[in-house]
Amino acid sequence: MDIVVNANVLRHFGARVFERLDLPQADADLVSASLVEADLRGVHSHGVLLLPGYINRLKAGGINPHPAVRVVRDTAATALLDGDNGMGQVVARRAMGIAIDKARHAGMGGVGVMHSHHYAAGAYWAQMALAEDMIGLAMTNAGAHVAPWGGTSPRLGTNPWTIAVPAGAEYPIVLDMATSVVAAGRLVWALKRGEPIPADWAVDGAGAPTCDPAQGLAGRLLPTGAYKGYGLAVIVEALAGILTGASLSLELLAVRDPASPLNIGHFFQAIRVDVFMEIDRFRKRVDELVRALKQSELEPGSAEILLPGEREFRLERERRSSGIPLPVTLLKELQATGDQLSVQAPWRLDKDAGKADGS
Amino acid sequence: MDIVVNANVLRHFGARVFERLDLPQADADLVSASLVEADLRGVHSHGVLLLPGYINRLKAGGINPHPAVRVVRDTAATALLDGDNGMGQVVARRAMGIAIDKARHAGMGGVGVMHSHHYAAGAYWAQMALAEDMIGLAMTNAGAHVAPWGGTSPRLGTNPWTIAVPAGAEYPIVLDMATSVVAAGRLVWALKRGEPIPADWAVDGAGAPTCDPAQGLAGRLLPTGAYKGYGLAVIVEALAGILTGASLSLELLAVRDPASPLNIGHFFQAIRVDVFMEIDRFRKRVDELVRALKQSELEPGSAEILLPGEREFRLERERRSSGIPLPVTLLKELQATGDQLSVQAPWRLDKDAGKADGS
Repeated sequence: MDIVVNANVLRHFGARVFERLDLPQADADLVSASLVEADLRGVHSHGVLLLPGYINRLKAGGINPHPAVRVVRDTAATALLDGDNGMGQVVARRAMGIAIDKARHAGMGGVGVMHSHHYAAGAYWAQMALAEDMIGLAMTNAGAHVAPWGGTSPRLGTNPWTIAVPAGAEYPIVLDMATSVVAAGRLVWALKRGEPIPADWAVDGAGAPTCDPAQGLAGRLLPTGAYKGYGLAVIVEALAGILTGASLSLELLAVRDPASPLNIGHFFQAIRVDVFMEIDRFRKRVDELVRALKQSELEPGSAEILLPGEREFRLERERRSSGIPLPVTLLKELQATGDQLSVQAPWRLDKDAGKADGS
Repeated sequence: MDIVVNANVLRHFGARVFERLDLPQADADLVSASLVEADLRGVHSHGVLLLPGYINRLKAGGINPHPAVRVVRDTAATALLDGDNGMGQVVARRAMGIAIDKARHAGMGGVGVMHSHHYAAGAYWAQMALAEDMIGLAMTNAGAHVAPWGGTSPRLGTNPWTIAVPAGAEYPIVLDMATSVVAAGRLVWALKRGEPIPADWAVDGAGAPTCDPAQGLAGRLLPTGAYKGYGLAVIVEALAGILTGASLSLELLAVRDPASPLNIGHFFQAIRVDVFMEIDRFRKRVDELVRALKQSELEPGSAEILLPGEREFRLERERRSSGIPLPVTLLKELQATGDQLSVQAPWRLDKDAGKADGS
């Protein structure tokens, strides 16, 4: 069962929880905002679902709440950052900011990051470029859940690619995709809601297709587009994992102790549009593309053509006023996490759930 | 039926043919080499199969054999190039060279290209970065063959992504993938060999799955990974098609007259490895990744794990000495193209094919 929670209320609650674990207020606000933003956009795999795990790692000492993020190497268009084991969001904001700054001066900027953690949805970071009239890119590796093509051992993360492109009157184009059929969080979300998963998302430990999300998480996720998703995941491993000095996804998998930092790697890029084309002309052309795609004849059963990110923008707009539906199981877990840290959840769920106040 | 042709003999023949249509010798050599290289690598969709089409367009005047390729805009890390309607290969070599040069000075370089043509396999250009200890990227748009997700009208090219990453003792990692399940040339190749295609590559004009490559080409190709391939194709459209001032894939589709230049767009990028990490350490880490992936347990029926591009490197090595098997139908077509331009093919095929000398 779902209960609807107001986004600002949820964000405020999350921020207070992170503050209790010694994150500076601005950082606590950022981390919470990045999670709630994902829920607003319907990307629940990267929403407040992640909060309890983040809290565990902070409590155990695996994440540094006061990282001294520093630039290790630097050229006109590139930088290498050491995230000092901080929260992924804190490091990502800094890194994407530097990529944007490099692009401002050199036309484009690329920033590699080591010693970071999970940064939640890549869209949050790639989209930082949009307000600067730039194209943004973010990628990250992650604990191994995907086998190489032809193999069965998890060796690669779901290694997502995220790219954000400014538009004019239309929504920006925001492609934010795991290189597996779905992100691991989609299975966790299904678990929370007690729902089965489609048979083409994952296989169980014996390699058989499964509709049970727990079995899928214990087994492995399948790459999107067969060997092509595998190839895209390998590239993320090279750029975000290797080039940055971070751990490989398969090395991340081996870190079971929440007290040990993960050394996740990211790669960010920003491209200034107007070093190629006047921004207004670019925006107009993107709108033309969007409209031309939407004017395609529809497949039987298809209601309309959507662009990458469009469903998410629409949901966000709607949910800012109507609120975010979240499963009772998850809200109870968040409430318990808050209780442990003396932060009262703005909702109260009895043991026989279903009754909520606040929100 | 296939006949085996020596790669150097084929390359020499191709170059002479292009010279007859007024390409400078160095450019004729490059174009022919790029096609034969693809055949060597087993990427026949982008091999000498393309030669007759290139020749038609050159003859009709749609391609400028003496382009004045020029830099239109320029920053420390970026450039915009006008290809002056030259051969895609001639323009691509220049553009990737500039991207590499920018990377040498600024850490990374990005080059957009307008007024270009088909550049054949992206691997040829992305791999230029490898010899410079850089990571290379190439993308291009192309005549529309793919519908937006949920639609049936071809509006997007097969819009490939190509990324090349240096390794140490292992083969470099070279991902070169259409964002459709396969490139359009795979269907043309099947046509030449009189072979059916798998049912998941394309649908016919009525939207029904087809194993007939001619029906597939008349219909549309399917995106890889469903909506994810669609999303990746849209991004190529934005970077290679829009940002550069080139035509959209759907605008390219409308140009039926081979006398009209196509205005295909490309985007190239080079990233200097050693602005992030010492190149030797990087190479070692890539080798570690490659080996770790290869050590995965195998799926039943799988002989070994391959990395992106590995099959192609192996074939290339083998075929440099053993020759390239090509269908008789294609060799006859090449022979006829040569005859028209008074360039004798180094093989002679009677009407009742199967007998070849030379090669």
